Amino acid sequence: MITNRRKVRIEWGDCDPAGIVYFPRYFAFFDDSTAALFEAAGFRKREMIRRFDIVGIPVVDVHAKFFIPSWFGDDVEIETSIEKWGRSSFEVRHRLLKSSELAVEGFETRVWVGRHPDKADGIQARAIPQDVIERFNKSG
Amino acid sequence: MITNRRKVRIEWGDCDPAGIVYFPRYFAFFDDSTAALFEAAGFRKREMIRRFDIVGIPVVDVHAKFFIPSWFGDDVEIETSIEKWGRSSFEVRHRLLKSSELAVEGFETRVWVGRHPDKADGIQARAIPQDVIERFNKSG
Amino acid sequence: MITNRRKVRIEWGDCDPAGIVYFPRYFAFFDDSTAALFEAAGFRKREMIRRFDIVGIPVVDVHAKFFIPSWFGDDVEIETSIEKWGRSSFEVRHRLLKSSELAVEGFETRVWVGRHPDKADGIQARAIPQDVIERFNKSG
Amino acid sequence: MITNRRKVRIEWGDCDPAGIVYFPRYFAFFDDSTAALFEAAGFRKREMIRRFDIVGIPVVDVHAKFFIPSWFGDDVEIETSIEKWGRSSFEVRHRLLKSSELAVEGFETRVWVGRHPDKADGIQARAIPQDVIERFNKSG
Repeated sequence: MITNRRKVRIEWGDCDPAGIVYFPRYFAFFDDSTAALFEAAGFRKREMIRRFDIVGIPVVDVHAKFFIPSWFGDDVEIETSIEKWGRSSFEVRHRLLKSSELAVEGFETRVWVGRHPDKADGIQARAIPQDVIERFNKSG
Repeated sequence: MITNRRKVRIEWGDCDPAGIVYFPRYFAFFDDSTAALFEAAGFRKREMIRRFDIVGIPVVDVHAKFFIPSWFGDDVEIETSIEKWGRSSFEVRHRLLKSSELAVEGFETRVWVGRHPDKADGIQARAIPQDVIERFNKSG
Repeated sequence: MITNRRKVRIEWGDCDPAGIVYFPRYFAFFDDSTAALFEAAGFRKREMIRRFDIVGIPVVDVHAKFFIPSWFGDDVEIETSIEKWGRSSFEVRHRLLKSSELAVEGFETRVWVGRHPDKADGIQARAIPQDVIERFNKSG
Repeated sequence: MITNRRKVRIEWGDCDPAGIVYFPRYFAFFDDSTAALFEAAGFRKREMIRRFDIVGIPVVDVHAKFFIPSWFGDDVEIETSIEKWGRSSFEVRHRLLKSSELAVEGFETRVWVGRHPDKADGIQARAIPQDVIERFNKSG
């Protein structure tokens, strides 16, 4: 299974009046990390959406634990991997490390989603193509 | 126990290329809702921070479940209450309703935090003043 | 000409480690205010996009002057109006008031834009429907 | 004079329902780029704030022109330099390039700001240390 690692610089604008990361920003970092993981597996989000005619891979469940705060100017690393594949959903795990210590841990359950055939603005879960799952298992 | 209700208009800038709310924005809505709940109990965040000499009430654990997507232009309502008080931490529950249906449910565990007496940039949990807890129990 | 007024509460998450509004957030407030102005004129953004088959009304030029900082917990008011209509572009002016004083002034030049007929992912300026312009002149 | 260059990946969460960058995000990119420029000159923002006992370098005037839209998945480059130093203010210029074409141009006027000696929550312009200005002129 692939594990993707990326460095993130904590910026001034990521932080709140306490000087530490405003926590919704961690979920944006994690969302970017999920996209980076798919890209590492050969699926750039933009092309993936077109190729498989999906709307995206929205989250249905998110959980995070915050152990160590980070401040603007900190450089952190995020390790991301897929823990489990279901028929139309999958689980992603993120570990944000600060000087090799686990600072934040995040879990996302995401769904492979297309436009609803009947309802305008509606979306609908679809089966994840086997091709996608296999690429994650082969590489890394 | 107080339950605070506030209406939120989903804006264009809250949404992603799929046209639905970019999920980190929900956590910003919830963070605002927690502040609104404290204000409803008589503690405006800015004065609360000064009065009790704290840095803030950062989250240590966040969990959310997403049932129904929302689109820009939607008007939703968020109901917020405190489920449980600990010595220095407390649990907040948010229910985001769309036309009376539960669209997103969120849980935050937050800590009452001051500056660390010794470490620059360090923060430290403190006991929540009894005065604060009582105000939530009395009102509403 | 219509002038729309809306109140905005400055939230903790809108502010940076200096405790004042992180300036990109002002542009989000202004973007929301432009949408609110159109809605006041009878054009909710979501329906407007469908009805006129446009992609949106993106900015091509933005200018802002910052006179007085705002802090989390401040309640401000934003006054928005359209200063000038061109064939496919228009100019929006925002005045953010804090206790009746001008705190931030913003200007946006926006374009009425549809999908490009030939280029995938391309966008193209279109003539603003006379119906839209007239509605702004009639009301208010 | 130093010119700093940095690459930015446009992420899904930077984009709006039209699929292109939500324009307030450009100002966050530019803010990060100004910090990166100072760091390239030897002044990491966090240490700079402590060392010179300032609150930050807030903007008082911002102007941007948008020539070419960017989409999620695009990799762009931002070139940043200081155009002019005043006594307590300075002008920053950003050029965002997409495949070597100028896509967005941004200008910021920023002020070197400390806490107001008398007013709580007040801030006050201060003279920029000559040491800072010289470092920009020497390097690069």
